[in-house]
Amino acid sequence: MDKKLKIGVIGAGRIGKIHARNIAKLNNVELISIADINVEAAKDLAIKVGAKKYFSDFLKVINDDEIDAVVICSPTNTHAKLIIESAKAGKDIFCEKPIDFDIEVIKKALEVVKECGVKLQLGFNRRFDHNFKKIKELIQNDELGKPHIIKITSRDPKAPPPEYVKTSGGIFMDMTIHDFDMARYLANSEVEEVFAVGNVLINPEFEELHDFDTAVITLKFKNNAVCLIDNSRETSYGYDQRIEYFGIKGCAIAQNDKPTNTIILNEKGVLSDKPLYFFLERYMKSFEEEIKEFVNSVLNGKNVPVSGEDGLKATLIAKAALISARENRPVKMEELL
Amino acid sequence: MDKKLKIGVIGAGRIGKIHARNIAKLNNVELISIADINVEAAKDLAIKVGAKKYFSDFLKVINDDEIDAVVICSPTNTHAKLIIESAKAGKDIFCEKPIDFDIEVIKKALEVVKECGVKLQLGFNRRFDHNFKKIKELIQNDELGKPHIIKITSRDPKAPPPEYVKTSGGIFMDMTIHDFDMARYLANSEVEEVFAVGNVLINPEFEELHDFDTAVITLKFKNNAVCLIDNSRETSYGYDQRIEYFGIKGCAIAQNDKPTNTIILNEKGVLSDKPLYFFLERYMKSFEEEIKEFVNSVLNGKNVPVSGEDGLKATLIAKAALISARENRPVKMEELL
Amino acid sequence: MDKKLKIGVIGAGRIGKIHARNIAKLNNVELISIADINVEAAKDLAIKVGAKKYFSDFLKVINDDEIDAVVICSPTNTHAKLIIESAKAGKDIFCEKPIDFDIEVIKKALEVVKECGVKLQLGFNRRFDHNFKKIKELIQNDELGKPHIIKITSRDPKAPPPEYVKTSGGIFMDMTIHDFDMARYLANSEVEEVFAVGNVLINPEFEELHDFDTAVITLKFKNNAVCLIDNSRETSYGYDQRIEYFGIKGCAIAQNDKPTNTIILNEKGVLSDKPLYFFLERYMKSFEEEIKEFVNSVLNGKNVPVSGEDGLKATLIAKAALISARENRPVKMEELL
Amino acid sequence: MDKKLKIGVIGAGRIGKIHARNIAKLNNVELISIADINVEAAKDLAIKVGAKKYFSDFLKVINDDEIDAVVICSPTNTHAKLIIESAKAGKDIFCEKPIDFDIEVIKKALEVVKECGVKLQLGFNRRFDHNFKKIKELIQNDELGKPHIIKITSRDPKAPPPEYVKTSGGIFMDMTIHDFDMARYLANSEVEEVFAVGNVLINPEFEELHDFDTAVITLKFKNNAVCLIDNSRETSYGYDQRIEYFGIKGCAIAQNDKPTNTIILNEKGVLSDKPLYFFLERYMKSFEEEIKEFVNSVLNGKNVPVSGEDGLKATLIAKAALISARENRPVKMEELL
Repeated sequence: MDKKLKIGVIGAGRIGKIHARNIAKLNNVELISIADINVEAAKDLAIKVGAKKYFSDFLKVINDDEIDAVVICSPTNTHAKLIIESAKAGKDIFCEKPIDFDIEVIKKALEVVKECGVKLQLGFNRRFDHNFKKIKELIQNDELGKPHIIKITSRDPKAPPPEYVKTSGGIFMDMTIHDFDMARYLANSEVEEVFAVGNVLINPEFEELHDFDTAVITLKFKNNAVCLIDNSRETSYGYDQRIEYFGIKGCAIAQNDKPTNTIILNEKGVLSDKPLYFFLERYMKSFEEEIKEFVNSVLNGKNVPVSGEDGLKATLIAKAALISARENRPVKMEELL
Repeated sequence: MDKKLKIGVIGAGRIGKIHARNIAKLNNVELISIADINVEAAKDLAIKVGAKKYFSDFLKVINDDEIDAVVICSPTNTHAKLIIESAKAGKDIFCEKPIDFDIEVIKKALEVVKECGVKLQLGFNRRFDHNFKKIKELIQNDELGKPHIIKITSRDPKAPPPEYVKTSGGIFMDMTIHDFDMARYLANSEVEEVFAVGNVLINPEFEELHDFDTAVITLKFKNNAVCLIDNSRETSYGYDQRIEYFGIKGCAIAQNDKPTNTIILNEKGVLSDKPLYFFLERYMKSFEEEIKEFVNSVLNGKNVPVSGEDGLKATLIAKAALISARENRPVKMEELL
Repeated sequence: MDKKLKIGVIGAGRIGKIHARNIAKLNNVELISIADINVEAAKDLAIKVGAKKYFSDFLKVINDDEIDAVVICSPTNTHAKLIIESAKAGKDIFCEKPIDFDIEVIKKALEVVKECGVKLQLGFNRRFDHNFKKIKELIQNDELGKPHIIKITSRDPKAPPPEYVKTSGGIFMDMTIHDFDMARYLANSEVEEVFAVGNVLINPEFEELHDFDTAVITLKFKNNAVCLIDNSRETSYGYDQRIEYFGIKGCAIAQNDKPTNTIILNEKGVLSDKPLYFFLERYMKSFEEEIKEFVNSVLNGKNVPVSGEDGLKATLIAKAALISARENRPVKMEELL
Repeated sequence: MDKKLKIGVIGAGRIGKIHARNIAKLNNVELISIADINVEAAKDLAIKVGAKKYFSDFLKVINDDEIDAVVICSPTNTHAKLIIESAKAGKDIFCEKPIDFDIEVIKKALEVVKECGVKLQLGFNRRFDHNFKKIKELIQNDELGKPHIIKITSRDPKAPPPEYVKTSGGIFMDMTIHDFDMARYLANSEVEEVFAVGNVLINPEFEELHDFDTAVITLKFKNNAVCLIDNSRETSYGYDQRIEYFGIKGCAIAQNDKPTNTIILNEKGVLSDKPLYFFLERYMKSFEEEIKEFVNSVLNGKNVPVSGEDGLKATLIAKAALISARENRPVKMEELL
């Protein structure tokens, strides 16, 4: 019988539950343990997914000799510390994004990961979305030509409550960071300069929290691709996730997914479904895919598809965007290095 | 300077106006005269389109030596007589469909046309529609393979008033006749057998008039293609005109045209325009094309694209459909010959 | 803790595997046993889904006191017998369609089910498809009006091999039977008359097997709805599953599902994905739903959503269609009663 | 009989021909004269559209007492002079965009127009496009809410030859100027700041001509709307003209128009038509509409729908964009005043 990867999951919240369930479905994995500071939550999840151990202490997962790899789904402010501990314990690591809001903290964590020679995959799940993967494949097969213009629309259905916003790191770090990663992934180049505009148009509370609820960002890449990103914290029609890649050979457009393909014709017009409501619905399959890829990378000794460096770079772009929006000027990435 | 075709138009009603205006736009035509039993209507139209003569007497158009060709847009019960007179006067003829409701009358008219050696084009304008022409081109380029299943949806926005229904010849002769012609055109074969179902589901008045407001028809062709036609005299969403051609190499679907391609996303869903309202909007370009083709055929001595035979055959299928719907049995076309 | 339904699965083939895996995902079920004449297949599947028992003898599942309900996925010719045995053993039953090709055999099985007071749900999974369910909801909310015209397109990607065709019961019993059930489900009425046309256009072998590879069927319902079904055993573009419901208040159209919503614009045009390849991909979610509904119906003492009567009626329509196609005449359903 | 507007057309090139033909179709206009420095071109066009006079000298049109209004379609460098002459002659003016590349020249011309009390309409035809007009109507009916994000995609099918580029005024003045006008029209506010990125990715010759072939522009409006424009001088798939307006109440998207709505399903996927090839096809109806509106405005003493001020403002934004792209910084519009 083939070797199974033995995994422990840290954090039994929304995203921890998703990962634990997806891990439990995989044939080449044994899900050993769940940890959460709320031990009841850990226990409940452990029972549901058939994990035999549960803890309130995260380190009990990490330092368990039975474990090969750790999946970190705890709050952001614990990520760097847990990465370091896991690396030191020789465990391969899957960690939710972002590693941290502080660039130095991220760099330190990545150093330890490197020193310890363990794998670290970041949770940029959108790279595994079926629609966006198709664009990536077209690019890799050179069906579209070099990137001239990339456009990413990413709009949430409903603005989060102020308590969430406060600890979110701001729109660029919390929301656009996914788009920054996607832009790098599709442009296949590094960002050279960032110009960002941030507005508060939906809820004045964002102003008080020194954050924005609406933003547009221009990214200039080293290969001359330009990427336009537009974000809104709220729409009237659900979760809006579209991508367009324009090259001289062709243009690929990833449109929204919808609950059904049934349309209705009546006296009002032709009506079709709104997009899938939010990221849990829209990106459910991508969460499955990213964990499957992580497991395969570890078991087969391959590079992980989203590295710690990818996480660092997206965070740096988010920093640059914030400076740009506040100072109303294009910010060169080299300013941040 | 190239020869111009000199045309007289008989009938200044809705369809007469459309043809007269389209003729007036052509560079290789001189529109000489308009006739209508209402001479004021003839005069008004003549002024608008720059025709120098107008009459109440149809024969004055036909027997005018200056005229090369006649466009017949008068009521159906005058068509056969005017075709015969025009043919005898040596004029080429464009005539609105149908030639007549009586098969013997049609045959007689076609005989005279043949004897006199003039051209006769029937007004099956949908053959010239941009969407349907594209399907025909795909067929001609053998991109779809032999026809296995053809589907035609043809639904009017609003049931006509009883006075119209009375003289219309019934749903198969008035409405489906266009679909019968289209089916022959796309199947590229002759109908062997007809099975029709007629219902009165919209307005009980149709029952009193011994007509149907809803119908579905199955046509079996000599080449084994089967065509399914569905008709309704009324919809809640405008004019529904769709065609599907399925062969083993591919399937082509002509969808509805719409006033705009603008869509709206809001809390109700994604809303797009209803189809173009009725045949005047939907088929406007096809009316232009059919007259242009008629003029070109006459000037260049080519066969007209829709012959008198085509008109006869569509009428025979309509007869068969009526027998089938009334007797609830498949009717072989040879029964009518 | 809530009561769990204890289930045994008979048949570990393609559809048995799907049902076993879907059952294993449910929280309110305990999957106890798997049987297959190939005991290795039963064992493998039992291990994968966590069932503790496996057998080669079907009766060992049925007569196990630990079992509440049986899911029958064995070959069609065993269905009636297993239904009867299960009913006599007091087990609720989920059975794949069809119950049998012989009407008398079906009736006998349904009688025993009735006498024994157990539940029987048939595997017409398409009723649980997200697109078609939406049409049903629109009908139930009276957003479309009474049914005037229903159209069902159901085309397979690839003709099956002759050995399959031989035992399939023919196109109407094997393929169209799903469409017959869907037509009844959407029309909300019983079929009065059937007119079917069958052709062999794809592979002459179907002729030798006295079967068709292309068929169109007209169903007349008691409530005057008319349904047009078109079937093909093969397309160039995958699995084509579309439904249209036209009433005076509106028209609903269920379009095909596709692997991605990404489109490509290049010099050839605008290209989007083909439909999902075949029924396993297209209807995967509906298989999950039907089992979930079966379990809920049993646990909560409710009527099952697809009854044995539904299976009988669809089979009767298939019989009528075959008579119609062979004798080229409309067949009244009362002829078969 | 109602008064007819007597019009002279200056310039018998591509756009002059379009306007002359559209004018000739209007019932409330008499097309009197055509002028072109190539008098044969003027004569040919005059014959085709039924104008009784033709000249090589533009002033003969302007100073003709019979004329009420002048339509200026001559090269850009003649626009300001002809506007001034026409205004002084008391003629109402329709002029193709832009008035001039020099802001002072434009201001001077507008002053004279004002002093002389004549009307001046600029040729921003896209405001009259059916798809974009629908967005404007939705905005006016407050169905979308205040503008948060506006996105305009405007890409040409084929890069123009160097000789054209040389005299075009550059991409912002030649191509984006339409988008700048559309942005102001939809945002219903004035631009405060411009950030532009220009690249040469298609043809290095643009570099030598100090122009760009690819550009993206961010416009910040006084009402906090942000507009993202992306331009390319060349695509592989024709003319790409799309607009998106996002407000908190809804999002409207104007998609491309296509020659047909026929789709083909085959082994390659689902293929539909490319967008209409270029602006002559795509915007043909809008050219008709703008002239019709001009005539109606003059005859009924109403404000023209696109003013000289609109022309000036779009030109100022183009200037700002050029500065921004060259100096890589956001440019405030007040810098240019």
